[in-house]
Amino acid sequence: MPIDPAATITITAFSWVPDFAQGYVRDLRPRWACEEMGLPYRERLISAIERPDWYYAEQPWGQVPHVRDGEIDLFESGAALIHLGEKGGLLAAAGQERATALSWTLAALNSIEPYVFELGNVDLFARKQEWAKLRRPSLIEALGTRLDRLQTALGERSWLAGPFSIADIAMVTVLRELPRSELLDSRPALSDYLARGIARPAFQTALAAQLAPFAHHAPAARQEA
Amino acid sequence: MPIDPAATITITAFSWVPDFAQGYVRDLRPRWACEEMGLPYRERLISAIERPDWYYAEQPWGQVPHVRDGEIDLFESGAALIHLGEKGGLLAAAGQERATALSWTLAALNSIEPYVFELGNVDLFARKQEWAKLRRPSLIEALGTRLDRLQTALGERSWLAGPFSIADIAMVTVLRELPRSELLDSRPALSDYLARGIARPAFQTALAAQLAPFAHHAPAARQEA
Repeated sequence: MPIDPAATITITAFSWVPDFAQGYVRDLRPRWACEEMGLPYRERLISAIERPDWYYAEQPWGQVPHVRDGEIDLFESGAALIHLGEKGGLLAAAGQERATALSWTLAALNSIEPYVFELGNVDLFARKQEWAKLRRPSLIEALGTRLDRLQTALGERSWLAGPFSIADIAMVTVLRELPRSELLDSRPALSDYLARGIARPAFQTALAAQLAPFAHHAPAARQEA
Repeated sequence: MPIDPAATITITAFSWVPDFAQGYVRDLRPRWACEEMGLPYRERLISAIERPDWYYAEQPWGQVPHVRDGEIDLFESGAALIHLGEKGGLLAAAGQERATALSWTLAALNSIEPYVFELGNVDLFARKQEWAKLRRPSLIEALGTRLDRLQTALGERSWLAGPFSIADIAMVTVLRELPRSELLDSRPALSDYLARGIARPAFQTALAAQLAPFAHHAPAARQEA
């Protein structure tokens, strides 16, 4: 497992998050990339509940991950994936394989995830609000169209850009947030793709690493409950 | 002007779009990048109204741009910006300047534009629907928080990553889609940043190039009107 206190790569993550977010925070992406490539990294844990003011200077939205590699700072999980992929080989250095991996990485983050964000608002944060109930059918329809096209584009391939790449880390982590029975069971090629992704040992190790601190950092009220 | 029928870079754009989209289609991004760097490109125009079936094999959502550079194909405007920026120098090859430009490019596309997409749904495509009216206040509030943080992060700088870069092409084209009086007039540093971006001669040339074909390709009903 690449977690190593002496590593030059530092991934900032939250020390604890509520149940619904556990296993889904986006430091999962650079953790997974590091595990796939055997790049050692260390963690820097911050509080999600009382986010330190200084952190906004490093990550403008106060979100995680922030990734430091030696003297180089990156925010946004997609930028971290590109940087780490170039460092460790999970993004081809040139040619069509690189172009395809970049295209699908951006597709996951700019053409699929925006719908997933809004579905999160509808189903979770705003679920008791009238607009969320009214909005849901058209959002599911638009997202479903995108997923149909993604399934067609994936075709018979195992991974989006040929060999497993940062594009698959981006896309699998996006698809994993969807309500499975509603959107994925009817699209077996996508369902299988998601299953292939999360079955990778590096994913499982990264997931366990994200979850590990939560038990020790639950808010006091939770620990007493 | 880099439009050159013998160029090795081909940008696919729409031959005509309705008024509300004219000047805002995302082939503007690679056109602008090419103009900034003096990279010659040629256009391939397709119909937005009757999108050719074959095009979905090149661009899974049927959107523009698709960019071909010699033998290399890219879809997603963000991927095209990274590829072109590496080719022509608008994305630094290494170091913190590259990391910052990548971070802000992804921030524009994954942390700001998703709100802008949904505001487009609310204000345009779904404007007569009840959910859109009910959703709008919370969406404006969430987007406003992001814009406040963007303004703080920009600080006194002219451009996001030091020198003008692909991050500014991404961010300026995202901000340009916002209702100005409501979201930008109260944030003068962002307003000035947007104005600086669109005042660049390369932006103006790219914009004119997107608009040029529309006059000749309007649907028959429009031409007669």
